Formats: sequence, C-alpha cells, structure tokens
Amino acid sequence: MISVNREAMKTVRLILDEPERLGVEVTRLENGATVIDMGLEAVGGWAAAKLYTVVTLGGLGEVSYESFEVAGRALTAVRSMIDYPIEGCVASQIAGWRLESPGKEHAAILAGPGRALNKASLDHYFDWIDYRDDHHEAVVAIQASEPVPLSIVETVAVSCKVQPRDLYILIAPNHSLVCAVQVAARIVEQTLHRLAEEGMDLRCLRHAHGLGVVPPLVDDDLVSMGRINDSLLYGGIANIVVESTDEACEAVVDKVVSSACDAYGRPFIEIYEAAGRDFYEIPIDLHSPAEVHLNNVTTGRTFSAGSINRDVLRASFFGS
Amino acid sequence: MISVNREAMKTVRLILDEPERLGVEVTRLENGATVIDMGLEAVGGWAAAKLYTVVTLGGLGEVSYESFEVAGRALTAVRSMIDYPIEGCVASQIAGWRLESPGKEHAAILAGPGRALNKASLDHYFDWIDYRDDHHEAVVAIQASEPVPLSIVETVAVSCKVQPRDLYILIAPNHSLVCAVQVAARIVEQTLHRLAEEGMDLRCLRHAHGLGVVPPLVDDDLVSMGRINDSLLYGGIANIVVESTDEACEAVVDKVVSSACDAYGRPFIEIYEAAGRDFYEIPIDLHSPAEVHLNNVTTGRTFSAGSINRDVLRASFFGS
Amino acid sequence: MISVNREAMKTVRLILDEPERLGVEVTRLENGATVIDMGLEAVGGWAAAKLYTVVTLGGLGEVSYESFEVAGRALTAVRSMIDYPIEGCVASQIAGWRLESPGKEHAAILAGPGRALNKASLDHYFDWIDYRDDHHEAVVAIQASEPVPLSIVETVAVSCKVQPRDLYILIAPNHSLVCAVQVAARIVEQTLHRLAEEGMDLRCLRHAHGLGVVPPLVDDDLVSMGRINDSLLYGGIANIVVESTDEACEAVVDKVVSSACDAYGRPFIEIYEAAGRDFYEIPIDLHSPAEVHLNNVTTGRTFSAGSINRDVLRASFFGS
Repeated sequence: MISVNREAMKTVRLILDEPERLGVEVTRLENGATVIDMGLEAVGGWAAAKLYTVVTLGGLGEVSYESFEVAGRALTAVRSMIDYPIEGCVASQIAGWRLESPGKEHAAILAGPGRALNKASLDHYFDWIDYRDDHHEAVVAIQASEPVPLSIVETVAVSCKVQPRDLYILIAPNHSLVCAVQVAARIVEQTLHRLAEEGMDLRCLRHAHGLGVVPPLVDDDLVSMGRINDSLLYGGIANIVVESTDEACEAVVDKVVSSACDAYGRPFIEIYEAAGRDFYEIPIDLHSPAEVHLNNVTTGRTFSAGSINRDVLRASFFGS
Repeated sequence: MISVNREAMKTVRLILDEPERLGVEVTRLENGATVIDMGLEAVGGWAAAKLYTVVTLGGLGEVSYESFEVAGRALTAVRSMIDYPIEGCVASQIAGWRLESPGKEHAAILAGPGRALNKASLDHYFDWIDYRDDHHEAVVAIQASEPVPLSIVETVAVSCKVQPRDLYILIAPNHSLVCAVQVAARIVEQTLHRLAEEGMDLRCLRHAHGLGVVPPLVDDDLVSMGRINDSLLYGGIANIVVESTDEACEAVVDKVVSSACDAYGRPFIEIYEAAGRDFYEIPIDLHSPAEVHLNNVTTGRTFSAGSINRDVLRASFFGS
Repeated sequence: MISVNREAMKTVRLILDEPERLGVEVTRLENGATVIDMGLEAVGGWAAAKLYTVVTLGGLGEVSYESFEVAGRALTAVRSMIDYPIEGCVASQIAGWRLESPGKEHAAILAGPGRALNKASLDHYFDWIDYRDDHHEAVVAIQASEPVPLSIVETVAVSCKVQPRDLYILIAPNHSLVCAVQVAARIVEQTLHRLAEEGMDLRCLRHAHGLGVVPPLVDDDLVSMGRINDSLLYGGIANIVVESTDEACEAVVDKVVSSACDAYGRPFIEIYEAAGRDFYEIPIDLHSPAEVHLNNVTTGRTFSAGSINRDVLRASFFGS
C-alpha cells in the first residue's frame, strides 16, 4: 500500500536540502514542527513551485511548464501528469481540511497528504474513496497570507497522530508565484471533485493529467484569488482516463465543465463580489475545469465538453 | 565506448527503487531473472512510461510531455530528445529481435539494449551500424499481452551471454499507457529505419529528436495497435541532424514519410484488415513518420517532407 | 547569501560524472584546471546542452524543450525558468568578461558564475547590481572555436582568486548544438541587459522566464552566429515579473524589443555584413528580444511589446 505522506516526504527532503537555491525559508517551531515558507516572506520561484505542487500531490505526479497563449501574449501553463489520481488528488491535493482558530476570522484550509492521516475526522472528500494513510510523518500545505498559528500546528499533529517534530507545513499566500502555479496544477483535482459530485464512482479512475495557465501575478490577495480561479474555470483542461461505461461518461461530461454553470462567463472576482464576497454563496458547479476529456478504456471512446475561454482570461489577466 | 546496457541499467535501478510509486510490479523468476510488469497486471502510469522509454533508448535520451491538439481536443505528445541516435535508437530501441516460442502462435519481439549483446545472431538492423555492446547485464523490453515464457527468458540470457540474474525484462501490452507512450516515442527510430532502407549511411547522424501524439487508450489490443501505429504514421514528427550532402538528403527525404506510401490516408487498422491481419503484407514504407526534417550541418539546409494528418488522427482516435 | 559558483558546481559535478553519456570530453590541464569540451571535438547533445545552460545560469534556472513552429516546420524551443534573475542572469549568464590574449585576433569572451569572483576588475554589468560571489571554486563558459590558451586559464584562476585545480571551463563553438541551445536560453539575460540600459533599476526583478527557438545547425561559425542571434532577435520571448510602477514599465517596454531598432527586419548576418563584420558597429539596442512582457506585481498589469517574426526566421533558417 502506497503512503502519500511517505512519498511526499521525499520531495520535502529535497526542499530542506536546498532552501537557499529554491528561495524558501525553513523554520523549526518551538514544538519541533517544521514550517516551510514558500512565498510569504520568502520569494519562492519556479523550481519551488514545482516542488510545492508535487508535495500537495502526495509525491504522485510530475509537473512541467509549457507555453500557453492568451490575447497574443505568451504565458506559461503548468502540466500535471498524475499517477494514482485517487491517492494523489482526492486524498492529498484537495484543500479539504478546515480548521477554525480562536480569534481568527478565516478558518485555515489545509491541503496535502496529511489529510489522509486525520482518520478521526476525515474531511468529506474521503467519503468518495477508501484510501487512508498510515505513516509516522505528516505533510500539509496551507494557502494563507499570514504565519500559521501554533494552535493550528498542534491540532494538526494531534489529529494526524504524529509527533510535532514529524510534521511539515508548507505555506504560500494567494499572490505568490508558488501559489499561482500550484492552483493551476489543481485542474485534475477540481475535475475529480465534480465527477464525484455528479455521481461518478471514482474507483473507475485509471490515469489523469491536466494543463492550467499561470496568471500574471499581483500583490493583492483578492485580485490574485480571482485570477487563479479564472485559470481553472476558463484556462484549465483535464484529461481523465476511466474504466467505465459510455453511458456513465455521457451522463456527466457536460455537467463537469464551468460553462454548465449559470454564473459562467464573467471573471471570478465579479462573481465573488456579486455573491457578497461569500465563497459559500457561489454555486459549487462553477468550480469546474474549462475543458474536460473523459477517455473510457472499455470502449476507447472519448467524451469531451467545454473549451478554453480566452476572452474571459484576457479580461481577468489584462483588463481589456 | 559507451555501453547501452550499462546506461539503461541506471534507469532500471530507478524503477526497482520505487515500483510502488510507479505502479509497476517486479518479479524475480526462479532462474534469477527480473521481470518488470509495467502494464499487464500493473497499472503503470506517466512516470513509468517515461522510464520504460528511456530504458528502451539504452539510457541515451530524455523524454517529456507536451500539448498536441487533435480535432479541438487537447491531447498529449511525447518529446524524445536523442543523444547517440545510432546506439540509442538503432542498436537499442528498434523492436528487432524475433524469438519463436514452442506452442505460441506469435513470436516474441524484443526491443532494448540487450539486442546489442546478442552477437552470435544479431538482428538485421545491426547491418547498418558498427556498434555492438559488451556488458555483464542485459536489458530487453517486450510489448506483449501475456507473461514472458521462461524458455524465452533463458534463451535471451544465453544469447546475451549474461547470467539469468543479470537479465532484466520490461513488459507492457499494446493497450497500456506505458506502451502508448513508448511507441509514440519511437518516431526517431522509425525514421532512421526508413532512412537506412532508402540507402542513407547512418554514420552521418549527428543529433535527433522527435514528437509523437499519445492516442486515447482502449482495453483492446487490436484497436490499440491501430491507434499507436496511427500516432507514428499520421501524428509523428522526426528532426534529424546529419552531416551529409544536400543531394543525399534530397534523394531520400520525400521517400521516408508515410504519405509516400500508396496505403497512406486510412487508419492503420483498416490497412491491417485489408492485408488479412498479416503484418508482413503491409508495405514496409508505410512505417514512416508523418513529418520529417533533415538538417544537413554541412550546408545548413533543412529538407522537409510530409505533415501531421489530423483528419486521420481524428478518425482513428475519435471515430468521426 | 547564495553562491552562484557553488550552485553551478552541483551541475558541473553531474557533467563530470557522466561525460560519456553526455558526449563531452573532460581534460585536466597541466596546471590542474578542468576543461570540459561540449562541442569542439566532442559532439555534445541535447542533455549536455541543458546542463551547459544551467551552469551558465549559476545553477539558478531550469531548462526544458518544447515545440516551436516556423514556416510549417516543427522546430524546438528552449524554455528557461529563472529563479534569482540578478544572480543567475546578470552576475552569471551574461558573456561579459573580455580577455585579450597575446597573438590572438579575437579576445576570449567569458560567461558564467566565475565573473562574479573577478572582484578586482568586474565587468561593467556588475555596475547594475550589488551581488558579488565568494567561493573557492570558479566556473566559466567560453563560446569559442578553438581550445582555450593556457595563459587565459591562468589569468582566470588568478582573477577569481581560486587555485587552478578549482577552476572549471566549459567550451562550445558557435556551430555546436550546445551553443545553439544555450544562446536561445539567453533571452531573459538579453532582456535584463536592455532594461538596465534603458534605466530600469534591476533590484525590482522578482521572477523571470523565457522561450527561444533553436535554429537549424550549420558547421560554419559565421552562419551559425547569424542564426543564433536571429533566434534571440526574431524568435525569443521574455517574461519578466517586476515590483515597480506602471510608469516605469510603460517608459521602457517599447524600447527593449528588437523591433525598436532601425536595423530590425533583416537576418542578423546581413546587418553584421553591413557593419563591416564589426560587432561594435551594430547598435546595442538591436540586441533585444523579439517579444517582451513585463508583469508589474504592484498593480497586476502586464506591459507587452514586440512579437515573434517568423518571416525573418524563415529567411535565416531556411533561406526563403
């Protein structure tokens, strides 16, 4: 049985070996836990972004960069080739562990393989899958604009049943390069999410890969948040290989693309503002990829829906 | 003198270090030989596919994934950057070693660097090149739908003059992801093959690289076989750097693309059916790349022929 | 403080571990210095080219290959993802250290991290930045068509204040594959160069990446020189992330693309011939990228200028 935390630790160790080259900052907390800042005080970079992404995938994917054109401008996309999509995406990459913190307005939202160790109160995405992990080290990643409170760190260690010294926390804020890349690399995860919500049994997953554009950066967490969501909704493609029936594929494919949602067609920030800046007022089916391809190995047929929307990307990224 | 088996073993060892992460299964046979299943019972994956490909190249190439569009659908292509095209492609990657097995209808066809150790009965591709290997370990790869018979394993060890415990056999069936990728990465090999058949002296080779689309998967060996061949014939590009004369390039370039063959223009499976499902009835010149570029360093000129045929790819991959 | 020579040495050691696989030749000179021939007598290759490039970047970048179409022909581009653009590009990659040699017509022009150790007579690019290195090993790279004279080797060791045995020199001539790749990967460096010349304070740099097409090879140093320059001027794209003002970006963006130069529009070799084959008669502003994007994180706006010129690339690469 593969352990997503053990696999992720291979990449965590690469980061700990070269923090300087990667432009990241490693801090050992008083309780022994290790925090790796990859974009808060640290500047991070392209190499750091790849490693952060691989860690959130439980070590079960490869990430590369390639060209992606928007409005005549040569941007960069992130390619994520996922082995073990259930373990790597559903059990690790989804930002599904919500932890309230006394005195804080926003809950901390944790992603990464540590989620699969939190067996006493697994987040609801584990309802879709049987996989759980068992390892003495835990790795989580937090998309946040301020340092992680010590109380959260301790809760995570206890929940994962690891010693604090065996807990590793990666952090990067919305506006950082590392965050922009790792979100664009969430396109497969976002799609699996939607497939399960529309009733597909995820045990049919065989292989998966995705491509998502990296938006231009901006030192404003709200505008960044809008752009990285637009990257998924309007600039992300997921290719999922399933062992299923054509009927099952046909029944879901048109529902799991962003264009199926009524709110589709405007930059995410406008939708967010219209929802009173309340994430939970945004229809869940908006959180879909722009384009999806389901390749059913049983028949060899491919079911496709949606397409990249360069007009909204241009409006979001370049304002015109 | 470089040893393709020694170089390939570096990658074999990476596979043996992480079978679980790669989704492959390693078996030690009773005679000590090691079989690595990369798609038969094992599921394999994108990372496994890259490593399998590098092994077949005798360790002398790098493989990466990038986008490739067919009929508005974002597929993936494999890029293979080949150093030492003679040693890596002709002496290793070509599936040229044919072994009959008692009681089996189909002969086993072996690829990989082990071919260069079989000095007592080298396959005919070695007529084009002087390279032979000398190493105490042998690595071969078999594209097959069932386990390798022990008699074949023993024949290979004896032929390569290695102890069975020093023999490593990679296996993946037509319909596996690993096979789809490694075949798409054969585009340079396929081209060198044709260049030699048309009379070019392969000693003029300097550098080479290729790009081939990975077809949608299907759990049917016959349909898979058709699609992976279409990937080469209609969706593969080879770039070959030669030190030659312009006349020599001009004399062959138009002959070494699939469109030069009368059978060109239909999905491979139709051509195969028309030939009574007999591979040896298919004209050899069909086994060419879709597009080829010969860059002659002596003059700096580039000779090009053929082009990607997205209509046939659409018909083969999407049935319309 | 990061050391570009220490970081580059990690890659130099990878090269020294596998000269055979990489197709390079390693020579230990009588004074103990190590010369790595990557294209003079040695053939080099795609893997060697990536490593050479990473060394010139002081180890602070990642390099990959992808498709790039010119005149219906599938060429290859080099993608360079740069962390620490000041240290990696300005302090290392720029070919800025000019060394005259008795009896030689042409000065040796050195690139690489060793430049940052030459503190007694730093080249003028260091006027733009504060970074200097301090390390006991020095690495330089020379684009030259003949072996490096021993007098140059000794001057470099003395200037860098290292023992000759701690000096590593990489060499590749204009016409080699390694050189074609590493020049195409200079697109960010070329752009930073121009940004500084137009008055931008380089301390505002946050992240950078680039894409440059690799020209067809030719065994003629003059024609090669023309093509590799055309790759930058007409086939190179730089994306620079800055923390600046929109006014500062707007003031420079249109000036730092090759199309801003009067000489723009003809293959470089013609411009060079018209200048009497005297590099110093060519206007400095011609040495710009074809296309540039400045992403200002302060406001999130992107300022773009120029575009790939496939007509000139076709003329330069294919002669029609």
